[in-house]
Amino acid sequence: MRVVKSPREISRILDRLKRGGRKIGLVPTMGCLHEGHFSLIRRAKKENDKVVVSIFVNPKQFAPKEDYKKYPRDLRRDAVLARRAGCDIIFCPGQADMYPDGYAAYVAVRNLSSRMCGISRPTHFEGVSTVCAKLFNIIRPDTAYFGQKDFQQALIIKRMVEDLNMGFKVKVLPIIRQKSGLAMSSRNKYLKPHEKKNAAVIFQSLMKAKGLIKAGARDASKIKAVMRRMILGRPGIRIDYIAIADPCTLVEKKRIDSNVLIALAVWVGRTRLIDNILVDV
Amino acid sequence: MRVVKSPREISRILDRLKRGGRKIGLVPTMGCLHEGHFSLIRRAKKENDKVVVSIFVNPKQFAPKEDYKKYPRDLRRDAVLARRAGCDIIFCPGQADMYPDGYAAYVAVRNLSSRMCGISRPTHFEGVSTVCAKLFNIIRPDTAYFGQKDFQQALIIKRMVEDLNMGFKVKVLPIIRQKSGLAMSSRNKYLKPHEKKNAAVIFQSLMKAKGLIKAGARDASKIKAVMRRMILGRPGIRIDYIAIADPCTLVEKKRIDSNVLIALAVWVGRTRLIDNILVDV
Repeated sequence: MRVVKSPREISRILDRLKRGGRKIGLVPTMGCLHEGHFSLIRRAKKENDKVVVSIFVNPKQFAPKEDYKKYPRDLRRDAVLARRAGCDIIFCPGQADMYPDGYAAYVAVRNLSSRMCGISRPTHFEGVSTVCAKLFNIIRPDTAYFGQKDFQQALIIKRMVEDLNMGFKVKVLPIIRQKSGLAMSSRNKYLKPHEKKNAAVIFQSLMKAKGLIKAGARDASKIKAVMRRMILGRPGIRIDYIAIADPCTLVEKKRIDSNVLIALAVWVGRTRLIDNILVDV
Repeated sequence: MRVVKSPREISRILDRLKRGGRKIGLVPTMGCLHEGHFSLIRRAKKENDKVVVSIFVNPKQFAPKEDYKKYPRDLRRDAVLARRAGCDIIFCPGQADMYPDGYAAYVAVRNLSSRMCGISRPTHFEGVSTVCAKLFNIIRPDTAYFGQKDFQQALIIKRMVEDLNMGFKVKVLPIIRQKSGLAMSSRNKYLKPHEKKNAAVIFQSLMKAKGLIKAGARDASKIKAVMRRMILGRPGIRIDYIAIADPCTLVEKKRIDSNVLIALAVWVGRTRLIDNILVDV
């Protein structure tokens, strides 16, 4: 497995592979790899000749008071685990490689970026779409793989790839969960043992909502109220948002008359966690 | 020469050519081709195996009250002239090909886009960089060619291509002028004969400014005052802006202590014209 830091060098390496007819899969990450990432890498390996895992903690998707500085970084550990999952090349550019002095270009995906997580993190998705546009142009994959845990992110990236005619496939794979139901996330590292235990209520509230809908409930505000009560029943948890929305537009629904996305963000102590499920109606 | 309307089809055609090792030159235009465009096509032909000329009047770079609707369109004439200049493929997508319902992705180049023409046309350059990002991704040229007449546009595009790691060359070729000095522009079509005659003062004012700098003048406001007087000496002309600026950042200079861009936009009757020169100091 190679570890490449320079955008120019990895483009050169991949150009050669592509001229040889090799299919390239890309798994963009911010490192601190977990089972969620491994599932993406394994799928990418199955469907491509070479798998690139990018590891770059992207400052542009963090607001000034967010956790950019303390975000966990351990390239050596990540490299071992990525290789084990099937990664062929790790691309880990430095900040100055990605955003040299005078950097000025940004990609925004309107509407989708301003809903749900975009309300409390208004600059977040512009940072995400910008760094992904750059990674996609550097790597030029045949397929890029994202996890459904970041449902809104994946939707925005798909829209960007289609709107800007980037000409490759984006696949979104299921959320990987711990036994408790807690969705795998690099930020779970921040949780103290009792917080981790309490955080299991996030998925429980989603399953409860799904159960209510399957049993015929159609009033979104009532379902959200049940979720809210469940979550606030645990100590140290605050709710950022709970949304029951159209899974294509992310527009919230009052009445559940077709398939919905149920998504939420909560603060468990000082850690912000997100989760979601899709429910067929 | 082929005329292709579908983004998917032209990508397919060009993929085949590129796999065969052919170099692709792209000249993005809004049609109504003139000598300025021909000079770009001829250069592209010299430096590439195949030349693509895109013709698309991009609604997103016009503000609601601007001339999108009346912008001159004549594909048949353009096709004949483009072929004569060396074009191999015309790419002329429809609006719905470029901006289908639900379109949401935009590319913005900060700072550079808000100066000079960006002051009176605040959404213009976002439209330009967005459509160029799309065209670049559809065509994936080895080199794209732009005219210096739209100096700010070319600078923004170069910045975008570099910042977003698009990985090809952008070349900016000299302004082509009529005998009177008037810069070639599709919008010259709008000018009545007496307006065209008066519009020659635009270039005369640039040459006058250059002469003053070459003779030692260093105070930008004094030079601009001379230009302003010259231009307003002609009937029916209003000034949008005159800028004497750093040619890399477009930041205006008070004192001319290094090479400068002198750029201006004026209204000749109901037609907005731009022009510029670079002056070595």
